[in-house]
Amino acid sequence: MEDNGPLNDALAATSAAIERVLDPILARNGGPEDRVVEAMRYSVFSGGKRLRPFLVLASAELFGVDRPQALRVAAAIECIHCYSLIHDDLPAMDDDDLRRGMPTVHKKFDEATAILAGDALMSIAFEILSSDETHSDPYVRLELVKHLARASGHRGMVGGQMIDLQAPELELDEMDVQRLQQMKTGALICFSAEAGAIMGHAGKQARASLHGYARDLGLAFQIADDLLDVEGTEEQVGKAIGKDQDAGKATLVGLMGVKRARKQAQILADQAIEHLAQFDDKASLLRAVAHFVINRNV
Amino acid sequence: MEDNGPLNDALAATSAAIERVLDPILARNGGPEDRVVEAMRYSVFSGGKRLRPFLVLASAELFGVDRPQALRVAAAIECIHCYSLIHDDLPAMDDDDLRRGMPTVHKKFDEATAILAGDALMSIAFEILSSDETHSDPYVRLELVKHLARASGHRGMVGGQMIDLQAPELELDEMDVQRLQQMKTGALICFSAEAGAIMGHAGKQARASLHGYARDLGLAFQIADDLLDVEGTEEQVGKAIGKDQDAGKATLVGLMGVKRARKQAQILADQAIEHLAQFDDKASLLRAVAHFVINRNV
Repeated sequence: MEDNGPLNDALAATSAAIERVLDPILARNGGPEDRVVEAMRYSVFSGGKRLRPFLVLASAELFGVDRPQALRVAAAIECIHCYSLIHDDLPAMDDDDLRRGMPTVHKKFDEATAILAGDALMSIAFEILSSDETHSDPYVRLELVKHLARASGHRGMVGGQMIDLQAPELELDEMDVQRLQQMKTGALICFSAEAGAIMGHAGKQARASLHGYARDLGLAFQIADDLLDVEGTEEQVGKAIGKDQDAGKATLVGLMGVKRARKQAQILADQAIEHLAQFDDKASLLRAVAHFVINRNV
Repeated sequence: MEDNGPLNDALAATSAAIERVLDPILARNGGPEDRVVEAMRYSVFSGGKRLRPFLVLASAELFGVDRPQALRVAAAIECIHCYSLIHDDLPAMDDDDLRRGMPTVHKKFDEATAILAGDALMSIAFEILSSDETHSDPYVRLELVKHLARASGHRGMVGGQMIDLQAPELELDEMDVQRLQQMKTGALICFSAEAGAIMGHAGKQARASLHGYARDLGLAFQIADDLLDVEGTEEQVGKAIGKDQDAGKATLVGLMGVKRARKQAQILADQAIEHLAQFDDKASLLRAVAHFVINRNV
């Protein structure tokens, strides 16, 4: 068993730092609109692995990017991630009551508030990215906005979710499911890893390497997630399990079987690490993440 | 009766031009994710007054802004407006079956698709604004992104909707309702009128005048909308009427009575027009809009 200490410390530090950035940004107003602010805070401050923010910070470090600025980009991406979780959990979507061991936003508040909290988290993400506190170069800020908009929209995250919802009626093969996952979760994970390169004015090759790393990492992450859904316990995972199978959802685990899927996740994690060769020791935490995502049990 | 010919022509021209801009932007992909693209197109291409895009174009013209660029900003704002309508109509929110005389998106498609279509319309709006096709000056693009994010978020449109949903349990007075309206619909209307000033590098005073104009116009518009809800027919308005009263929603018409409210709308429209004095004849369409919003019957 390898030592995950440094990675665990880094993940915990990321989580605390992100929360410090978001606390004043999600300040209450004092009016009745604060109900939606409470729902946004409930979602954003409820823990989670903070994988995406971590990828932003780790990639930013490769290029010597100012950490307070990288933290703002990380916070923006986490807002988008949380919005997607809130909307995905709604009764009309995946209908989940539990997330990270806690009631989902529409259970804790109500459906209308959950829809609005997701919407407002998306707005605040773009507000954060457009601010000059996030980067001194306006072209960098614009590129971050453009990429996040693309990664989250109908050709990215939302498009993937749209396919996922129709999966029971579609006959998806392994390639189709891989495309679905790349859209649904991969696009935002790729953006997270590339964000540091964008902020650091990195060259094309470095950026392409991080893209390749994140692409393989995202797929490995998704397979690990699907394996947990099949093999984990609700207590361990913090949300309802066995749901994907029940809903007839297409997963690579369902198509490949547990054994082949686990092997595939390992191959993808190894591949992800190969993309990092040029970064030498500076990328050790990014390598550790690749091991972590396929060995995690939460 | 005044001649609304030039205004009606301009509104119709705006609508056609916006649709030409959005058609390729909302291109189908060819995959099963196109279900969400169809829902986005259904919402965006279903007519509507196009008041917000019109305000963008009319204010842009005051400062000699390139029309194709102003059209892109107008299209982005219309995407945000349509997203808000789709989400507002959901069963968990206002639960409306009819919009502009047609089934609402969740009725035509389903709730999950409607939620996703709204989400993706928000993403595409920010993608449009961040593109260099929208303006050559990166600081202008960033300011547009920042303002749209603010106007649409928890301190703007979403915050207003959050108050509106709680209105039956809150004892709102006229000032509270005015604040609610300024957030819920006013913020986006103000941004629409200011967008031309931002694009045209207008001075502070010109921009403040357009802000004042739009603020009064937005409130007049909302009172007119509430009067239609009380006095109009479903056929005329194209959506269910009498709903605000039934839902116990706070409206200025409910608080002031029909007669005082109609007078207030007139005062606001006059005030809106006074803000335009410095623009002379160039602002004639903006003046016509102020008359139009309080005299419209759709």
